[in-house]
Amino acid sequence: FSTGAGDTVRATLFPGDGVGPEIAESVKQVFNVAGVPIEWEEHYVGTEVDPRTESFLTWESLESVRRNKVGLKGPMATPIGKGHRSLNLTLRKELGLYANVRPCNSLPGYKTRYDDVNLVTIRENTEGEYSGLEHQVVRGVVESLKIITRQASLRVAEYAFHYAKANGRERVSAIHKANIMRKTDGLFLKCCREVAEKYPEIQYEEVIIDNCCMTLVKNPGLFDVLVMPNLYGDIISDLCAGLIGGLGLTPSCNIGEGGICLAEAVHGSAPDIAGKNLANPTALMLSAVMMLRHLEFNDKADRIHNAILQTIAEGKYRTADLGGKASTSEFTNAVCDHI
Amino acid sequence: FSTGAGDTVRATLFPGDGVGPEIAESVKQVFNVAGVPIEWEEHYVGTEVDPRTESFLTWESLESVRRNKVGLKGPMATPIGKGHRSLNLTLRKELGLYANVRPCNSLPGYKTRYDDVNLVTIRENTEGEYSGLEHQVVRGVVESLKIITRQASLRVAEYAFHYAKANGRERVSAIHKANIMRKTDGLFLKCCREVAEKYPEIQYEEVIIDNCCMTLVKNPGLFDVLVMPNLYGDIISDLCAGLIGGLGLTPSCNIGEGGICLAEAVHGSAPDIAGKNLANPTALMLSAVMMLRHLEFNDKADRIHNAILQTIAEGKYRTADLGGKASTSEFTNAVCDHI
Ligand SMILES: CC(C)[C@H](C(=O)O)[C@@H](O)C(=O)O
Ligand SMILES: CC(C)[C@H](C(=O)O)[C@@H](O)C(=O)O
Repeated sequence: FSTGAGDTVRATLFPGDGVGPEIAESVKQVFNVAGVPIEWEEHYVGTEVDPRTESFLTWESLESVRRNKVGLKGPMATPIGKGHRSLNLTLRKELGLYANVRPCNSLPGYKTRYDDVNLVTIRENTEGEYSGLEHQVVRGVVESLKIITRQASLRVAEYAFHYAKANGRERVSAIHKANIMRKTDGLFLKCCREVAEKYPEIQYEEVIIDNCCMTLVKNPGLFDVLVMPNLYGDIISDLCAGLIGGLGLTPSCNIGEGGICLAEAVHGSAPDIAGKNLANPTALMLSAVMMLRHLEFNDKADRIHNAILQTIAEGKYRTADLGGKASTSEFTNAVCDHI
Repeated sequence: FSTGAGDTVRATLFPGDGVGPEIAESVKQVFNVAGVPIEWEEHYVGTEVDPRTESFLTWESLESVRRNKVGLKGPMATPIGKGHRSLNLTLRKELGLYANVRPCNSLPGYKTRYDDVNLVTIRENTEGEYSGLEHQVVRGVVESLKIITRQASLRVAEYAFHYAKANGRERVSAIHKANIMRKTDGLFLKCCREVAEKYPEIQYEEVIIDNCCMTLVKNPGLFDVLVMPNLYGDIISDLCAGLIGGLGLTPSCNIGEGGICLAEAVHGSAPDIAGKNLANPTALMLSAVMMLRHLEFNDKADRIHNAILQTIAEGKYRTADLGGKASTSEFTNAVCDHI
């Protein structure tokens, strides 16, 4: 990783919009208290379309991630209008963010209907139903193309098994609908099987998506690592977030070409409460912890992670989305006190 | 409806395979005890491919449904091998079964994590991701086509609003991913909006599928009637079944061209327990009740429905899938005793 002044690491920060800047401040505060040697390169979404990115993302901001290979991203709402690309999709495309990784764990102290969730969803993040290829030839008949490639499927499968092994996980479940989409999802499964052969120590199974969703709501404890094509990942990762309390509590990180790691809070920018010191910074903080683990700052990651978990477990400072009355800064201060 | 001898109605029965015949017997027994004036035309899946249906379904069995316009179907496992079509998909195609309707209600006495589920999923059943059009041009690059038509979308949307009104429901939610599949899912939404205009008394909303799944696991009580393209319906209807205990407890019925109603238990054929008097007949019984309501045999439907609910609520006779020890016939006898 590129190092800045002294022994610090440089990382890109996209505070994003809406509540993004506030919760990014929370992360900075927590990192300061924990003494994390990171120097942020901050990039906001631009105010006009940058022709080099065809979006409101600036070329410089993408260059920053490519150079630093590590970054943290808050929520970004794509401005409405034509002639430019979605911010999130542009990031995925331009940085080759091929795997979206979302650990999903029940949080002691924040009660939901489930207390035994301990799984990780790994979503192919570049193709599938997100090809953007749609057309209407006959009036009233519209088609969209789902594209599955061997390359992208192998890459995400490799990542899933690698992740499982590196994190002491026991099983990888490939989620699919190959009984209907025999060729596309069939290719995805074929690639998963190929990779599975190289990891005999990791169990491998295939689960049809409808059955997977039913099992997740009945008995999520049965799952460990799940890997799947783009749209199924979109659906299942949000379902899983719901099991433990919602997107305000679930971290994620995107793995990209050339070893990029872009951690990301996947919740919305909540413009209605922006600037009011009400947002829950947990998802961004936990995402920042994922980034620290990627950087192998494991001590710092553990300390911050534990402080977040303790603050949630105590339940004294809880933001409005979790039914509490705490402000963003009260919650953040409590986390800092635990560090 | 075509009437048989006396004042009876003729209906087609597909017992199906695996546990199908046993649970179909349960329905017949219950119908007898309740004095339902139905004469069954029974059709089993054939032992060889019928060239007229390109599947193991016989032409006669399809003709039977077309003639009677009403039927009941147990589970059917498609024989493995090439050169023929899936049984379930053939039925949907040949009979124009354009809407799959699945009411999903928490069952008093059968405890799950949720006790407030009271919703109905209505799934477009003929197109979308189930087009069967897939191809590989470049090696390692496979495409599948999702087809959304104005005709099928309007038809299922009409059915959803009609159903909501006829059943005293308040709101229809259209589930989609039109932020990504702007054209296909966009057309689906456009059709839903058009139909919604004709039903000012029914509330209408649009929910993105990932958010829908998250909300379903957090707070399913927020939903009423959900209408959606094929694959989303496949996923969400199973998810919802999971909320109340699984496919063994959820009825469904398919609405087809020319007023066909084919009620269907959507669980598998469970070959491992076939013939052992262990299967749970609840889903097929509840599906049969949907068929009776369609026939406007409301008294009979109510009596049978209540008897099933009472038997489940008492919890004395529970089959193995629900953690009990009762046999299929013990459960069935208990239902008969309540009629
Ligand atoms: C905002 C939307 C384009 C995005 C997606 O569908 O991928 C979101 O749901 C996500 O999961 O990051
Ligand atoms: C068996 C399979 C083809 C079917 C489907 O995907 O439609 C099933 O899951 C269903 O929901 O009836």
